[in-house]
Amino acid sequence: MLNWNNLDTTRAFEELKKAEKVDLTKAMVGESGGERVRKYHVPMSAGLDYNFAAKNVDDNILEKLAALAEEQQLVDKYESLLNGDIINTGEKRHVLHQLTRGQLKGDVIADGVNKRAFYKEQQDHIAAFAKKVYSGEISNEKGEKFTEVVQIGIGGSDLGPRALYIALENWARAHQTLKMRARFISNVDPDDAAAVLNATDLAHALFIVVSKSGTTLETLTNETFVKNALTREGLNPAKHMLAVTSETSPLAKNEGYLAAFFMDDYIGGRYSSSSAVGGAVLSLAFGPEVFAEILDGMHEEDKLALNRNLLENPEMLDALIGVYERNVLGYQTTAVLPYSQALSRFPAHLQQLDMESGGKSVNRFGEPADYPTGPIIFGEPGTNGQHSFYQLLHQGKNIIPMQFVGFRSNQTGMDDVIEGSTSQEKLCANVAAQIVAFACGRDNENPNKRFSGNRPSSIITGDQLTPKSLGALLSHFENKVMFQGFTWNINSFDQEGVQLGKVLAKKVLAHETDGALAEYSKLLNV
Amino acid sequence: MLNWNNLDTTRAFEELKKAEKVDLTKAMVGESGGERVRKYHVPMSAGLDYNFAAKNVDDNILEKLAALAEEQQLVDKYESLLNGDIINTGEKRHVLHQLTRGQLKGDVIADGVNKRAFYKEQQDHIAAFAKKVYSGEISNEKGEKFTEVVQIGIGGSDLGPRALYIALENWARAHQTLKMRARFISNVDPDDAAAVLNATDLAHALFIVVSKSGTTLETLTNETFVKNALTREGLNPAKHMLAVTSETSPLAKNEGYLAAFFMDDYIGGRYSSSSAVGGAVLSLAFGPEVFAEILDGMHEEDKLALNRNLLENPEMLDALIGVYERNVLGYQTTAVLPYSQALSRFPAHLQQLDMESGGKSVNRFGEPADYPTGPIIFGEPGTNGQHSFYQLLHQGKNIIPMQFVGFRSNQTGMDDVIEGSTSQEKLCANVAAQIVAFACGRDNENPNKRFSGNRPSSIITGDQLTPKSLGALLSHFENKVMFQGFTWNINSFDQEGVQLGKVLAKKVLAHETDGALAEYSKLLNV
Repeated sequence: MLNWNNLDTTRAFEELKKAEKVDLTKAMVGESGGERVRKYHVPMSAGLDYNFAAKNVDDNILEKLAALAEEQQLVDKYESLLNGDIINTGEKRHVLHQLTRGQLKGDVIADGVNKRAFYKEQQDHIAAFAKKVYSGEISNEKGEKFTEVVQIGIGGSDLGPRALYIALENWARAHQTLKMRARFISNVDPDDAAAVLNATDLAHALFIVVSKSGTTLETLTNETFVKNALTREGLNPAKHMLAVTSETSPLAKNEGYLAAFFMDDYIGGRYSSSSAVGGAVLSLAFGPEVFAEILDGMHEEDKLALNRNLLENPEMLDALIGVYERNVLGYQTTAVLPYSQALSRFPAHLQQLDMESGGKSVNRFGEPADYPTGPIIFGEPGTNGQHSFYQLLHQGKNIIPMQFVGFRSNQTGMDDVIEGSTSQEKLCANVAAQIVAFACGRDNENPNKRFSGNRPSSIITGDQLTPKSLGALLSHFENKVMFQGFTWNINSFDQEGVQLGKVLAKKVLAHETDGALAEYSKLLNV
Repeated sequence: MLNWNNLDTTRAFEELKKAEKVDLTKAMVGESGGERVRKYHVPMSAGLDYNFAAKNVDDNILEKLAALAEEQQLVDKYESLLNGDIINTGEKRHVLHQLTRGQLKGDVIADGVNKRAFYKEQQDHIAAFAKKVYSGEISNEKGEKFTEVVQIGIGGSDLGPRALYIALENWARAHQTLKMRARFISNVDPDDAAAVLNATDLAHALFIVVSKSGTTLETLTNETFVKNALTREGLNPAKHMLAVTSETSPLAKNEGYLAAFFMDDYIGGRYSSSSAVGGAVLSLAFGPEVFAEILDGMHEEDKLALNRNLLENPEMLDALIGVYERNVLGYQTTAVLPYSQALSRFPAHLQQLDMESGGKSVNRFGEPADYPTGPIIFGEPGTNGQHSFYQLLHQGKNIIPMQFVGFRSNQTGMDDVIEGSTSQEKLCANVAAQIVAFACGRDNENPNKRFSGNRPSSIITGDQLTPKSLGALLSHFENKVMFQGFTWNINSFDQEGVQLGKVLAKKVLAHETDGALAEYSKLLNV
């Protein structure tokens, strides 16, 4: 029997608040710092490792976090989710994204369908379709092969697939498995679609329209925009378009598409990268085998998240350290800082994943949650950020916890020794240096050159960013966000906060406005 | 005589704290909301307009903000800066970036040089060089024209120029003034350079190495990386490389470059887009005339920032509203949300501009500043953000002030009427709707569908994003950041917080580590 309790009603949270704080600067200096780095880490799958030595925790705090995990029944709730219980209370839905990459518990039957079989079937359809595209069995009006793919989607239909594509584009090129170059159209700003179309060889391009409901304003608009462009070029849109949608949407069973691949209501947009939403474009771009490796990495990490021992469960631990920072230490923001240019859009995806899941003020029953919930997430790749906003992270008035990511090898294999070290070594030296600089600080007689330290960070390290380690990394954050939601007793799987804007935008377009809305509409000439 | 006082010592700030707060939700509903939108705006240059109706201000608060502007002598301090006083106290330097785009006060002579003449001369050299590149007078080893340009730089030598290039790429294409396609290499991650080089036609590419000191680790590493790649292709690096640097740097008067263009210590990296740092790449990419238009727009806006009447000075007003939000209302973060895909990297530039300038804990004399200073800045273009982190902005536990930007027309001229409206109209309808949704909220019997409102935002509107309006927009934010620094009595022009990480990274590369730093180095195999 599960208890769904607000965080501030738990005994463990009271204990956690009372626990002695860790003086990070002191803890991380000298040999005790070295010991912490060796001790405070949890192995992940795909050779990744979560190191939390530079977080404000010690054995005592970790014990309290473990008690909180137990009292809030975090792993039990995860198991309940895997078993197909209605975890998305607001929309009264199952939450099944983990099922797209394997099965960890019993069969989940929904709407009379075995859901694991359904997701697997879609993956197989996509794989078969991709092979026909490569072989030329599916080709354009002139019988020529398709060479490019363009995804039309927004939010979860854009950010995750785009971040993953960018993460593996150079890797795929280096491994001769870049089958089709991918591009993405998301914004309703016509200049977004215009620029992508301008850079695309329309005659040899496939377009994937991704919308679960088949009613997303931006996506349908951009779809028509693209179809008009194809028609103007004398091309037949029906020969160039695919749909990824739910089986009941207007895009399904529609002759306007070469094929349709299906998702369903049990996978939220921001959790849909491992469904057909990411599967179609990534399978076409890199080959279905590469997409399958991403899923493998995710599944392995999903499995680790079942560990009841907090120190063997990197997702639950990361989640609880975040809760400690948010609800005990009072920090509002978390920076995600991958030292990997390939992960340049990963923070943007995590922004949606985390902020849309955790940005709630009511608990899963619609009652007030009277404590901080999801933090603000932002980030850019290092070392770039070092020359930008790190000044504030080091010397600003607010403390911003950080999550670093770093790899021992780069993806392309191209590197030079310059002044005694490779670029990859310089990159790694910088992230190591930053963690210590943030944690330990440095005194100086000139206060302007003083670093107060005590700025907490964790780092996920790995050998290389590959399809499998990328999958593990993504699953890590999905499960972290899920565990935080359980801890806060919120529903991490709905997004009612996006509705009001949609309603008002429709009013503007229908010219049914008054007061401020009418004036802003005038100002913007709409 | 200027008084440099901490914010918390001023009478005006005490008054501001005591002033009655504005109930934004109440103020923005109904006809009073419409009145506010008509009343609370300030015209900017280049047809832009700053509207602050949806901010937590009224006539009373505005009066208190004006008193604060006067007590902190904001315009006097700006005049002092323009007159060449040593405003950058930490580094004991003039602050002269405004002088790159015109002269608003008397001559500034530094190191025996008339600085306006010096900056203008560099612009002229760049313009003359660009014309020789277009004509083929300057060409590659085989006498063929250069067709591409790649900027190698990081931080201020990357973010601003890159954001401006992206902002105008589609505009320039539509206006047949895209002379050379530009790309950027910034990260020391070798995969960044490898990917750019892979996409570049090396034989026909110019590379601009940008480093004021000529010693930036990442930039020099990437320069050598590129030179090695050119050499491997049988090309002569000296025939492909330009330098933008200070006259005393190792890159100046160096036979390894086709030409060198100069900047100096009086322009900080994050304020250097209007110097040769942005000038070289943007003049080559779009033509010197287009770069001159950007500068025109900046100069016009710089001029407005001299207005002593707060309600005629959009930069000072925006700055003080930000201070009110940060220091009285207690908000830590500001989101920058341009409804324009062309501005996709503008928030990343503002992140550096604002957070590196304002992220300080001491005042300009090195004494403690015991109040919040610069906020955290993040943002993505709308409507994309609506499908991502807006959930938290609408229903999260913390209030995050917002700055919207929107244009009545798009840049490419390509647009379609779909379901009764153009894409541009849909884009504009959305930003209008969001402002009202954030400010007014909406009640609902289901608390999960309730929007509490009172989420403040401003919007800068304009006809179209052009070189001139882009310049005005950039200057707006540069001057806003400057005025905030004056209000907080901090030095917005140094960045001591970036030093410690550099020192420690060098230690790692020299293998001079112990404790935590040694362990992290091991973990990352460096």
